[in-house]
Amino acid sequence: MQNVKIIVEYNGTEYSGFQIQKDLDTIQGRLENCLKIILRNDVKIKYASRTDAGVHAKGQVINFLTLNGVNSVKLQKSMNALLPGDIVVKNCEVVEKTFDSRRDAKSREYEYYILNRKYLSAFDKNYFLIDKELDIESIVIASKHLIGRKDFRAFCKDASETENTAREVENIEIERRNDFIIIRIIANSFLHQMVRIIVGTLVEVGLGKRKPNDILQILESKQRKFAGKTAPAKGLYLTKVNY
Amino acid sequence: MQNVKIIVEYNGTEYSGFQIQKDLDTIQGRLENCLKIILRNDVKIKYASRTDAGVHAKGQVINFLTLNGVNSVKLQKSMNALLPGDIVVKNCEVVEKTFDSRRDAKSREYEYYILNRKYLSAFDKNYFLIDKELDIESIVIASKHLIGRKDFRAFCKDASETENTAREVENIEIERRNDFIIIRIIANSFLHQMVRIIVGTLVEVGLGKRKPNDILQILESKQRKFAGKTAPAKGLYLTKVNY
Repeated sequence: MQNVKIIVEYNGTEYSGFQIQKDLDTIQGRLENCLKIILRNDVKIKYASRTDAGVHAKGQVINFLTLNGVNSVKLQKSMNALLPGDIVVKNCEVVEKTFDSRRDAKSREYEYYILNRKYLSAFDKNYFLIDKELDIESIVIASKHLIGRKDFRAFCKDASETENTAREVENIEIERRNDFIIIRIIANSFLHQMVRIIVGTLVEVGLGKRKPNDILQILESKQRKFAGKTAPAKGLYLTKVNY
Repeated sequence: MQNVKIIVEYNGTEYSGFQIQKDLDTIQGRLENCLKIILRNDVKIKYASRTDAGVHAKGQVINFLTLNGVNSVKLQKSMNALLPGDIVVKNCEVVEKTFDSRRDAKSREYEYYILNRKYLSAFDKNYFLIDKELDIESIVIASKHLIGRKDFRAFCKDASETENTAREVENIEIERRNDFIIIRIIANSFLHQMVRIIVGTLVEVGLGKRKPNDILQILESKQRKFAGKTAPAKGLYLTKVNY
């Protein structure tokens, strides 16, 4: 029995999210189908983060167990030859049998790319464009309130009453790079749409619609309706999983 | 009667080229439909360059005559509100009645973007990727043979026997910018797929499959089959029309 760990990059634009769903084109579906062809056996993969439809990844981590002898260099080549161009295996290795890509993940890192400029361009369709000025300083102040172990229930889509919505945000960094504002969030794990709701709320702060300190009341309310609009999936990248 | 000149940018990925065609989604179709809604009259536009399916433009020029009084600032705003996000009006002005965007064009400028790097990425689908090293010096030497007034019949798709295939290439520039190699070509006008066949041939020179001086024999042959493969539409941009 071998345990294979794979780092996958994908452009989520044309997929119905990571998790396999009947009759829908998903990243998991593509990966399992590809592995089935190569290994000639059904393969069930585990994965670190369930990304939603339209969300991208530069460093999704998956693993699977197989009875076949696997040469990791060959497997990576075969997978990249079989997979569509918008799903790419970046690394492949045989690891300890006990490794579990989901359970063993200590933290996940996401980056959200906001295109912030005034003119329209025909080539921006895949970006989240904000054509008004954003006050970065206010966004940075607001973001500090989100760091630490807190109940993020207000920043979660459809949290059930019994769900544990406490998460530990290790850090949030805001960076301006050319016309982009990049919001980088590291947490032990994330609630459903948590990054996108945080980004949407921070954008409202940057536009002056909310004050940086409003974040405190939103957290305290524990109600989704008090946070900002959910930012679109197309700006979001799962960049790294730390073990 | 007013003559309106418009500069249009578009991402050609999802369109069947510029020229209007029945039952197909074209840039001309979108523009004429949009103008019809705004001006409440059928509008027939003229345009500087007929770009093929999948080819992009940063500076396509069109013009049309209308009996309606046109406020160019308002027209630009209305068009950008109505057009899909991948077609954008960059400039709009009322010009002399005699102006003709096609006939008066003195030259056209195209840029071809080659993504030249070794690693695979899931985000490169819309680029023409060459994952082998390209010898830029050889490409530059080869490109010099294409400058001047010449018969470009070998660099034209489906030229009829009677078609005049002489064109004047004013300049070809090769630039490396990050992972991209950009080939910029200026000519009085272009034959069908001329830029893409030139680029495909120059790439073969860069890969060492042809020598720079082979260009001379290809030109002399006046036969398409002696030139290189046609580079894909997705790397090509109509950047400017000079009057």
